[in-house]
Amino acid sequence: MKYPNSNKVYVKPKESVANRGMSLEDDINRTNRYYLTNDIAVIHKKPTPITIVNVDYPKRSAAKITEAYFKLASTTDYNGIYLGKYIDFEAKECESKTSFPFSSIHPHQIKHLSDVLRHGAIAFIILRMTYYNKDFLIKAIDFINFYNSGKRKSLPYAWITENGFEITTAYNRPCDYLTVAKTAFDL
Amino acid sequence: MKYPNSNKVYVKPKESVANRGMSLEDDINRTNRYYLTNDIAVIHKKPTPITIVNVDYPKRSAAKITEAYFKLASTTDYNGIYLGKYIDFEAKECESKTSFPFSSIHPHQIKHLSDVLRHGAIAFIILRMTYYNKDFLIKAIDFINFYNSGKRKSLPYAWITENGFEITTAYNRPCDYLTVAKTAFDL
Repeated sequence: MKYPNSNKVYVKPKESVANRGMSLEDDINRTNRYYLTNDIAVIHKKPTPITIVNVDYPKRSAAKITEAYFKLASTTDYNGIYLGKYIDFEAKECESKTSFPFSSIHPHQIKHLSDVLRHGAIAFIILRMTYYNKDFLIKAIDFINFYNSGKRKSLPYAWITENGFEITTAYNRPCDYLTVAKTAFDL
Repeated sequence: MKYPNSNKVYVKPKESVANRGMSLEDDINRTNRYYLTNDIAVIHKKPTPITIVNVDYPKRSAAKITEAYFKLASTTDYNGIYLGKYIDFEAKECESKTSFPFSSIHPHQIKHLSDVLRHGAIAFIILRMTYYNKDFLIKAIDFINFYNSGKRKSLPYAWITENGFEITTAYNRPCDYLTVAKTAFDL
């Protein structure tokens, strides 16, 4: 089948990703709720860090923040415990079909991943390649080694498919990353 | 020495707590920075959870949140990794000299502590009894057992001194809780 733009490859949605559709964050939050409810793991997204400048305290109603600014995150967005182990990861969506640019992940977050790794964490990145409608778990150690090698300014998609672990969906787990983590980290 | 109000006991500040003075949160954050810088542990306070209702995007300057509200925390405020273990705790200041009221800690947070405990976490509460100028580490399991016993609506101070582990200060660690945790949890 030929398309006007021959670079575009028709990607047939797989059964296994049929539940996806919302943002990666929504999908991970929903998956985390499933893990919590079913006592599989306790993993939460950290709130967005903000600097509060002004708060109004109206009588008889809730305090209202009237001036605040977004702050740079100094850690990753998600952490918790699974099988007695400390879990830590960052989640990113990537629209490019060729690679995931390192500029999309902040050096603070890479430092944090390498900090927790040194202390024995199960650390990784969840990467959603929206063009292919695929989610990958990339071990932080692999990511950091490639990043530190200085060879490239992005993770090529070929590298991602070769070194990453594809995440599938399951009932009420639109991004069932722990099933994949079990294999990737031999848990 | 007699005081006008004979209930008031003069508490001589100990050398070991000389560095204290700011809020418990400030003291823990400073201690966590020491742990991080000296590669002892990676423990961070989670940002305050808020619901953002409105954001302005002025040209050429940072996005400004103009309406937001505080949200109830569904987890504890601090977590991280120490000696390869998942650490999770809540910190509370208490002004009463007789007891720490259970109303000061939200049921969601107690549920969270019991969730992470079940998965193998090192979980505790740091309690600052401001009247005595003392900080205590209370193991979550002890706290929860007492809480669930339904005997009282607060933790009596006598119970705290008997079951809690007093936290001392050290150079650049105004609330050196990990030293105490090592003993309390036999790490």
